[in-house]
Amino acid sequence: MASSFQPYQASMLALGQAPSVIRETFEYGNRRAAEIGRENVFDFSLGNPSVPAPASVDDSICRLIGDTDSVLLHGYTSAVGAEPTRSAIAADINKRFAAGISASDIYMTCGAAASLTVTLHAVLCPGDTCMTFAPFFPEYRVFVEAANASLTVVPADLDSFQMNLDAFAQLITPQTKAVIINTPNNPTGVVYTEENLRRFCDILRAKEQEFGHPIYLIADEPYRELVYDAETVVPYLPNLYDNTFVCYSYSKSLSLPGERIGYIVVSPKMQDARLVYAAVCGSGRALGFVCAPSLMQRVVAENLGKTADLSVYQRNRDMLYQALTEYGYRCIYPDGAFYLWVQALEADANAFCMKAREFELLLVPSDSFGCEGFIRIAYCVTTEMIERSLPAFKKLAEAYGK
Amino acid sequence: MASSFQPYQASMLALGQAPSVIRETFEYGNRRAAEIGRENVFDFSLGNPSVPAPASVDDSICRLIGDTDSVLLHGYTSAVGAEPTRSAIAADINKRFAAGISASDIYMTCGAAASLTVTLHAVLCPGDTCMTFAPFFPEYRVFVEAANASLTVVPADLDSFQMNLDAFAQLITPQTKAVIINTPNNPTGVVYTEENLRRFCDILRAKEQEFGHPIYLIADEPYRELVYDAETVVPYLPNLYDNTFVCYSYSKSLSLPGERIGYIVVSPKMQDARLVYAAVCGSGRALGFVCAPSLMQRVVAENLGKTADLSVYQRNRDMLYQALTEYGYRCIYPDGAFYLWVQALEADANAFCMKAREFELLLVPSDSFGCEGFIRIAYCVTTEMIERSLPAFKKLAEAYGK
Repeated sequence: MASSFQPYQASMLALGQAPSVIRETFEYGNRRAAEIGRENVFDFSLGNPSVPAPASVDDSICRLIGDTDSVLLHGYTSAVGAEPTRSAIAADINKRFAAGISASDIYMTCGAAASLTVTLHAVLCPGDTCMTFAPFFPEYRVFVEAANASLTVVPADLDSFQMNLDAFAQLITPQTKAVIINTPNNPTGVVYTEENLRRFCDILRAKEQEFGHPIYLIADEPYRELVYDAETVVPYLPNLYDNTFVCYSYSKSLSLPGERIGYIVVSPKMQDARLVYAAVCGSGRALGFVCAPSLMQRVVAENLGKTADLSVYQRNRDMLYQALTEYGYRCIYPDGAFYLWVQALEADANAFCMKAREFELLLVPSDSFGCEGFIRIAYCVTTEMIERSLPAFKKLAEAYGK
Repeated sequence: MASSFQPYQASMLALGQAPSVIRETFEYGNRRAAEIGRENVFDFSLGNPSVPAPASVDDSICRLIGDTDSVLLHGYTSAVGAEPTRSAIAADINKRFAAGISASDIYMTCGAAASLTVTLHAVLCPGDTCMTFAPFFPEYRVFVEAANASLTVVPADLDSFQMNLDAFAQLITPQTKAVIINTPNNPTGVVYTEENLRRFCDILRAKEQEFGHPIYLIADEPYRELVYDAETVVPYLPNLYDNTFVCYSYSKSLSLPGERIGYIVVSPKMQDARLVYAAVCGSGRALGFVCAPSLMQRVVAENLGKTADLSVYQRNRDMLYQALTEYGYRCIYPDGAFYLWVQALEADANAFCMKAREFELLLVPSDSFGCEGFIRIAYCVTTEMIERSLPAFKKLAEAYGK
């Protein structure tokens, strides 16, 4: 074989073979469950919704099957998404946030990951940098690098886990074309405060002036509906900053992660908004998306404003946060999402997670999220499993002298 | 603004703004229908299935909604697809083609376009060339170029519209890493003969020897089930050539184009098959696919071997082919798909299509398929519309002195 010939894309092979610590933990849990029984393993590894989709979603599916012409129901929609769906979503956004969004600002996608890859391929050019704030969803790096750009990670604010804006202001460069933020946050569950966000947008605007070009804010918002306290506000980013994309998914709010349905909002206030929207269309086409799943486009349009029963997550959060704090763990209070972020009881979070396995607790170490010394607990599990796991958390703390 | 700064990917903008002649023709048809009535416009532009999904598909959907746990039904599957679905598909393939495929050779996708982009990104490296045979589905160029490679088009065999293998053997180079073929073919409806395919595979094997590296055959097969004569055989490519990918979709066979469900087969006989499969997984991850739609994964597994009522297409084909041949058109006999490929009655197919519009016939000129002087008639329309359109085809022929 010619020495320069590569039979496959080396970077894709590496991604395909990369051991994800989350997936490895989950698979360890399955092996362990086979050994000692599922009920004796406390698997907190995966961010997979544990509550059913609202009954109205399943009702919509069956009703649409019954009363809609099959060729229309299962047929291609426009590449940007069916107009009635986009209009309904725009109206819902405007009702909630008075954001002035219209159907033509919305591009329907196959879920949050697609929202991000389509957006990133639309705007990033070779040599560009995209930034994000630690701790962050590890796929951001995969998606940015696949778009031939590089990711710059802003170190975490280890006290508040709000965006570390001093570090951000120091790290941003003229090569920075976009910044991905995620609030409510995976993995911390933190909701960025309006003050933190406003200061962030002020810095972005100042840097746009200084560099003489737009810097796109990409708001990754699959957890927007998952907030638990009445006073928690998740500001709508297009209202704070003009050059904003909102990448949304119904995976968590409607418990439909496998159905791959979401959207991108290209803020109409964005510089060259219509050209950027056209680039989004080109990007979706080039990546092979064609259109978002057609039946689900109709289903979500009929279920705007509805959510799965999120009270389970709130109950889980309250129980875990209270108990673990009482046992001596330092927990970051999660306003949203379904993750609890806890300081490991030794400096090496990986070693701590291995220790936790002795008590059948499957936790994800923070290193893969770009931050050391913490663990992520995905509490999208049954409340009953959490109750049964509490003695194990107590013993784990005691093993560290708590 | 800094002069070197690009606010968006120029290539994506170009794609998003590119006027597709198919789409433009379709939209002209809509405007014309508003002017003179839908029943007076004969729109043959779009390859959108016109027959409903089989009743068993809708039955499966409603039954699954009723009897399956929502969290499992709508939840993430494994990135490669649910194991039961992949096993069922492998068993069905082996039953029909004795191809020795197993579940671990199959990667579920969001439809044919995704099957192609995921495959191309898995194997193509910058500097590589991918080849295809004119006339060809225009998105091949988009998909290949998005994977940072270049497309080489083999000129059509204007007599048979089989693969032009002499030209292929002359154009292939050591930079050729992959060849996309599409049988039954869009836009011609031609099914490549077993003889043509065997000779093609012989050339590929000889060139692999000569160049010292694998050359991948990418079989784009969304129309596999759409063949109309009992004697028409569509050979299964992994049985003829080891380094084969099969890119399949249920869009046409089950009339589910909007639902985005298909798969890739990585032939187990491929060189480094497990590594290439891992690269496919990495590619799907990098492009943001996560998993194929979960409900539809179960639905297709329950409907293997079923098809929509394809007899409508056969009736349409027979009626159109017979009438147009009688009126003096040179039609290429279509063994499959739902396209009729007809020689334009003047050298310039675009001019011919504009002339056809005077008779309210909306046809797609061949130029965008990489071949001049022909037009594509998509006969996935009602038989009744075809009947009503025949006098217009007759008048069009007469306008050219036929």
